[in-house]
Amino acid sequence: MSPTIPDDPLGAFCRENHIAVKGASAGPLAGLTFAAKDAFNIAGARTGFGQPDWLRTHEPATETADAVVRLLAAGADMVGKTHCDELCYSLTGENVHFGTPVNVNAPGRVPGGSSNGSAAAVAGGLVDFALGTDCGGSVRIPASYCGIIGLRPTHGRVSDRGVLPFGPSFDVVGWFARDIDLFARVGDVLLDADTAAAPTRLMVADDAWDELEPPVAASLKHAAAQVEAMLGAPAHLRVSPEGLAEWFEVFRTLQAAEIWATLGGWVSATQPQFGPGTKERFAYAATITPAQVEAAKARRRAIRAQVDALLGADGVIVLPTSPRVAPLRGTPADKVEVEYRNQAQRILCIAGLAGLPQISLPMAQLDGLPLGLSLIGARGSDRALIALARRVLA
Amino acid sequence: MSPTIPDDPLGAFCRENHIAVKGASAGPLAGLTFAAKDAFNIAGARTGFGQPDWLRTHEPATETADAVVRLLAAGADMVGKTHCDELCYSLTGENVHFGTPVNVNAPGRVPGGSSNGSAAAVAGGLVDFALGTDCGGSVRIPASYCGIIGLRPTHGRVSDRGVLPFGPSFDVVGWFARDIDLFARVGDVLLDADTAAAPTRLMVADDAWDELEPPVAASLKHAAAQVEAMLGAPAHLRVSPEGLAEWFEVFRTLQAAEIWATLGGWVSATQPQFGPGTKERFAYAATITPAQVEAAKARRRAIRAQVDALLGADGVIVLPTSPRVAPLRGTPADKVEVEYRNQAQRILCIAGLAGLPQISLPMAQLDGLPLGLSLIGARGSDRALIALARRVLA
Repeated sequence: MSPTIPDDPLGAFCRENHIAVKGASAGPLAGLTFAAKDAFNIAGARTGFGQPDWLRTHEPATETADAVVRLLAAGADMVGKTHCDELCYSLTGENVHFGTPVNVNAPGRVPGGSSNGSAAAVAGGLVDFALGTDCGGSVRIPASYCGIIGLRPTHGRVSDRGVLPFGPSFDVVGWFARDIDLFARVGDVLLDADTAAAPTRLMVADDAWDELEPPVAASLKHAAAQVEAMLGAPAHLRVSPEGLAEWFEVFRTLQAAEIWATLGGWVSATQPQFGPGTKERFAYAATITPAQVEAAKARRRAIRAQVDALLGADGVIVLPTSPRVAPLRGTPADKVEVEYRNQAQRILCIAGLAGLPQISLPMAQLDGLPLGLSLIGARGSDRALIALARRVLA
Repeated sequence: MSPTIPDDPLGAFCRENHIAVKGASAGPLAGLTFAAKDAFNIAGARTGFGQPDWLRTHEPATETADAVVRLLAAGADMVGKTHCDELCYSLTGENVHFGTPVNVNAPGRVPGGSSNGSAAAVAGGLVDFALGTDCGGSVRIPASYCGIIGLRPTHGRVSDRGVLPFGPSFDVVGWFARDIDLFARVGDVLLDADTAAAPTRLMVADDAWDELEPPVAASLKHAAAQVEAMLGAPAHLRVSPEGLAEWFEVFRTLQAAEIWATLGGWVSATQPQFGPGTKERFAYAATITPAQVEAAKARRRAIRAQVDALLGADGVIVLPTSPRVAPLRGTPADKVEVEYRNQAQRILCIAGLAGLPQISLPMAQLDGLPLGLSLIGARGSDRALIALARRVLA
């Protein structure tokens, strides 16, 4: 442990519950530094979850999250915990209690959330890589907004033991890096062997692209052409026969019900002071009925079968990570927390509902602001997906 | 050669230019009988092409079509030639000059064309199997209407040497049988080794299914469920992002231009007496400009890449063969030769434009009338497609 909070001009690191842990003296990640989102338990420190009342009402963790243990054992040094959105329930990256980490690649704009501090710290070069979590887009969106690489792995692929549960059937542990070679080295530590073939059959998810404004689409299509040049002419298709708006409703219903199941008891008992948007989302989460959940679960099974069948063992879907560049800091909540979030989640819910790996690559820009291009691979193809990203970014 | 026309209660066989050829005394098809559509050249007989003026103005063939030679060498006996639609330019099966072969599985209804005599002869048990050709659906439609098995192979897979050219970039040699085991034995003779993997990843072409009236769709979906039970949950997608109406225009433009190129000179010089519809279609074929052809060729390349990318090496698309059961004999030409034909070709053009194998299986009925369910496989997967059909029909 280190008593010293890292030099932090970006406001990315947690102060009240700071902790640092030195890694093994040798290993494949020796000499590298990383940070972990403040949703990972680190023995000896309280986990804050982006919420002061949560921090206040919880005892220090007695165990360290599996993913952190693996990285430490591989020789990387954890230099601190990073801020996240309030209870992780936002994609924006503005935390009314702990501030908004600076997005060095999009000055004056939000870093995206909920893994905002991890993404900002990586983008700003404060650490070599950082851990985040992704339930509805919390790794992918900040990767896109901050112009860095981020992976949402296959659901269950990276152990989430010791990570605060949020929407467990969607929650995954992911990570960020600026450099794809370093990104792959971290993957070699966190991921076991693939169970799927290398992706070679490219598909363009037209329905996801249709969510974009023309300038965003133009910039990202230019990036997608680089993938097409590598894998050959893609198939154009709509991932969702029912439309992504319908899929998003399935996602929203299940996610909200799970969040209420994991956090509703604490919220009811504690009556925390919530920032803009959080209270409304918990109020919505409390309204989901068991009948809605059962219907949505049946739809999720069908959606999963649909996407699995599209991908087979060797498919890869190219799609935008986000429908937009990072919004300006201070954009009203009805925009960022409702309109933008819903629009983004119509795209993000594909990998979420299907439980599939999605990597966001900083391959495009609009007016100098980063835009991520995403690849979704077959279940268990995470390493091959990273290998493909390496070829694409080479 | 045999001087005797087979016993023919169905009106399937050609009389004016009848020819029969005994096969080798031993071989994998020894003891089986077959017929060949009167578009296959058989040395010593004139080829009629379903048109009396064509028959009159052509000398006897001096060579026998490759496919027939292969079958004879394998021990099968060719017992006669079968009627086809006028110059093969129809999907209906009614020939104003030579009559309409009887469809024993749909009494009072057409057998479908243009390989009408071959399909009728197989359905009625006059031969064990029969050869046809398929440019725009001339094997698939009569297979569906007559309740038998028919394959449109990968374009170029079965030699078309010695077969009258019609629309060469679409023309293929196919065959019919009642029984899948016998069908496969013929395939073993006509097909070289596959170049694609076995199809395992099932896709439902929603855009093709959307062409059906609800009762037809219901019956065929019940049949498709048997394929799904075997291969697992399918992906639902639209094969054509642009819509099948656009694809059909590409097909129609290229097919008409090719037909004019192969037959326009003879039609202009001979001014044959045409039956209903044929004259109008040739008049249309004469109007296609080179600029239209070039644009359509570019679209066909993109369509081929699209379908190839969807299928990969292991994909298979399930779709209806035809949007309807066999129409009643004597249905007005504006219905069967325009409305029904266009509707059918919006489905049939998928395999045609892509040059891919499509097998039609007699797996459904509506009001006791046959309906074919089709599978489209990857380029060069013909044998594997037949093997899959064998499992499905088992």
